[in-house]
Amino acid sequence: MAKLFYRYAAMNSGKSTQLLQIANNYETMGKAVQLYTATIDDRYGVGKITSRLNIQRDALTYDDSFDFLAQDYQGIACVLIDEAQFLTSEQAQQLHRLAHTRHVPVICFGLRSDFKGEPFPGAAWLLSLAEDIEEIKTICACGRKATMHIRVDGQGQRIKEGPQVDIGDDTRYHAVCAKCFYQGHAREDTP
Amino acid sequence: MAKLFYRYAAMNSGKSTQLLQIANNYETMGKAVQLYTATIDDRYGVGKITSRLNIQRDALTYDDSFDFLAQDYQGIACVLIDEAQFLTSEQAQQLHRLAHTRHVPVICFGLRSDFKGEPFPGAAWLLSLAEDIEEIKTICACGRKATMHIRVDGQGQRIKEGPQVDIGDDTRYHAVCAKCFYQGHAREDTP
Amino acid sequence: MAKLFYRYAAMNSGKSTQLLQIANNYETMGKAVQLYTATIDDRYGVGKITSRLNIQRDALTYDDSFDFLAQDYQGIACVLIDEAQFLTSEQAQQLHRLAHTRHVPVICFGLRSDFKGEPFPGAAWLLSLAEDIEEIKTICACGRKATMHIRVDGQGQRIKEGPQVDIGDDTRYHAVCAKCFYQGHAREDTP
Amino acid sequence: MAKLFYRYAAMNSGKSTQLLQIANNYETMGKAVQLYTATIDDRYGVGKITSRLNIQRDALTYDDSFDFLAQDYQGIACVLIDEAQFLTSEQAQQLHRLAHTRHVPVICFGLRSDFKGEPFPGAAWLLSLAEDIEEIKTICACGRKATMHIRVDGQGQRIKEGPQVDIGDDTRYHAVCAKCFYQGHAREDTP
Repeated sequence: MAKLFYRYAAMNSGKSTQLLQIANNYETMGKAVQLYTATIDDRYGVGKITSRLNIQRDALTYDDSFDFLAQDYQGIACVLIDEAQFLTSEQAQQLHRLAHTRHVPVICFGLRSDFKGEPFPGAAWLLSLAEDIEEIKTICACGRKATMHIRVDGQGQRIKEGPQVDIGDDTRYHAVCAKCFYQGHAREDTP
Repeated sequence: MAKLFYRYAAMNSGKSTQLLQIANNYETMGKAVQLYTATIDDRYGVGKITSRLNIQRDALTYDDSFDFLAQDYQGIACVLIDEAQFLTSEQAQQLHRLAHTRHVPVICFGLRSDFKGEPFPGAAWLLSLAEDIEEIKTICACGRKATMHIRVDGQGQRIKEGPQVDIGDDTRYHAVCAKCFYQGHAREDTP
Repeated sequence: MAKLFYRYAAMNSGKSTQLLQIANNYETMGKAVQLYTATIDDRYGVGKITSRLNIQRDALTYDDSFDFLAQDYQGIACVLIDEAQFLTSEQAQQLHRLAHTRHVPVICFGLRSDFKGEPFPGAAWLLSLAEDIEEIKTICACGRKATMHIRVDGQGQRIKEGPQVDIGDDTRYHAVCAKCFYQGHAREDTP
Repeated sequence: MAKLFYRYAAMNSGKSTQLLQIANNYETMGKAVQLYTATIDDRYGVGKITSRLNIQRDALTYDDSFDFLAQDYQGIACVLIDEAQFLTSEQAQQLHRLAHTRHVPVICFGLRSDFKGEPFPGAAWLLSLAEDIEEIKTICACGRKATMHIRVDGQGQRIKEGPQVDIGDDTRYHAVCAKCFYQGHAREDTP
């Protein structure tokens, strides 16, 4: 029985590495996978899934108008979605329906909350619908598990206002634990 | 280090039983707990946490205007919240902040999505912020894991429109797996 | 597809409560379950599964010579085993085979290690074979998660030698975290 | 608080990839890690941790006589152990004690059971002691989750007898689900 999986994590935890490993596991067994990433994420080029271990693969891309149910999954054993926090709530529902009405497992990798501590809408829907939720863990500079993010400016000063999505250099974001998030990392007050 | 926990499940899985067991575990060790449930849930009386195994305890109640950060947690080793899907998004944030700035573990029990398959806002926030997420499992009539709900009318016919919250007799809701949800349980078409 | 589940925990965490809740969930849906507990555990009478929340049910019993594959599971939707640390390694294999060749889900509840920090053989096999492993959490007196046990004598002094199994009053055992276990709880040296 | 982690999986699931990713996560934050693998595993050379994604790093090695408590962990933020099923039960205890008395997190990656369905002793101890257990999932050829292994000879015929450890070409082992394991994969009878 196909399911919807959500693998969530803070930034810089190795989500893309796990995605590429799972793709490799399927392919080693002679099964085909379909990879997707968000058009908006152009950090390493559009349509690239890039691991921190210096592995990269091409992927199809989705923007807000993309309809996952309108695609052909003939012969596909698994759909793998990177940067899933950029899915719309409608797309999250499409992927859930894809798993359960067309019997293709869908494994999504993404964040949960933004630099203000607010949920990404697509991620909130995936967390509400997925049959299988797991965390990919990484650590805060203090040694605790990182679950939140902070955004910093060019001088390393924490920024607390601004749009939810601002694709930029990875150094603009730090993954932090909740305690550091509230204490005001980067010499800032509690948000 | 205190954390925010979310224990999610479909209806009729035994969430309240686990909550009452954890309260008992703390109290057996001489530690005090604070119990809360939603004012709106009056199925067994207001301010009652009631297990399917016929155990019941009094609890404090919260409605949408309740401020969890304005309460006194002196001497409290753990805060336990039932029916947490009725929390507002602001209250979910308060409970996260409570755990991390005042160092009281907060364990919330609740649903994820409603009878239309849409997230409860408070639950979506808890899923996005909690450091520890676990599922309390139960089964669909078909034998698969139940993760969704359907609402039925007095004649057992499935209802697909209406307000998200409609407290009523437990027989008005069935916990189902996603496959049965989409196939249209109760002799209905796919929603 | 039926699976073997292991729900492990330290003592006094509420394992039997969860077992009885799952039995209730199945029965509410009109499905029959088969309950087993260890003959050797006579704390509340032989053949009784007793929850710390004062709920009790009768169960079939197994001793070391019991053969789970020789039983009839006609009409049984789920087999639930309490005190599963007392299973022999052979019985753990029988239960795994039962799930996969006769398609009956088997859910076992038990400890992992004894008061010397050594695995119970049956538990070690269940942990090695089960398709689904989950921890039922409880806390040490220090507030951390309890994962180990210590045995004390009538004066509350820690005992570090003796047979693995010594059924007795619950007050003879404390569930502790690993740090307290090694530091020598009960004013004792490191084991 | 440091903990002992066990990340278990069937063969060919990508354990080494995750280990190398975690090492990278720590090092990106300016923290040092200590890597170990089993001397006996010489598939890619002794003292090499090799990912299926073609990444390789040097590691220290352990054989049965190695004493983990006799090493110096000054300045080490995390100890990462590959092929942990080859640890002795004594070494598993050393690593648990290392985490809790010297406060170094220890993350072990390994199998659970061998081609006969019997636990690896070191793995059974890790599963019994670890504070944090997670499965790295991969699939059987039939599409279900793989949790067991079979060994085949040069002609692809299943072998059911022989020593537990027989390091060889990866093609000598297949990761399978329990149902295929008992049904007798590779045209064989039920074991």
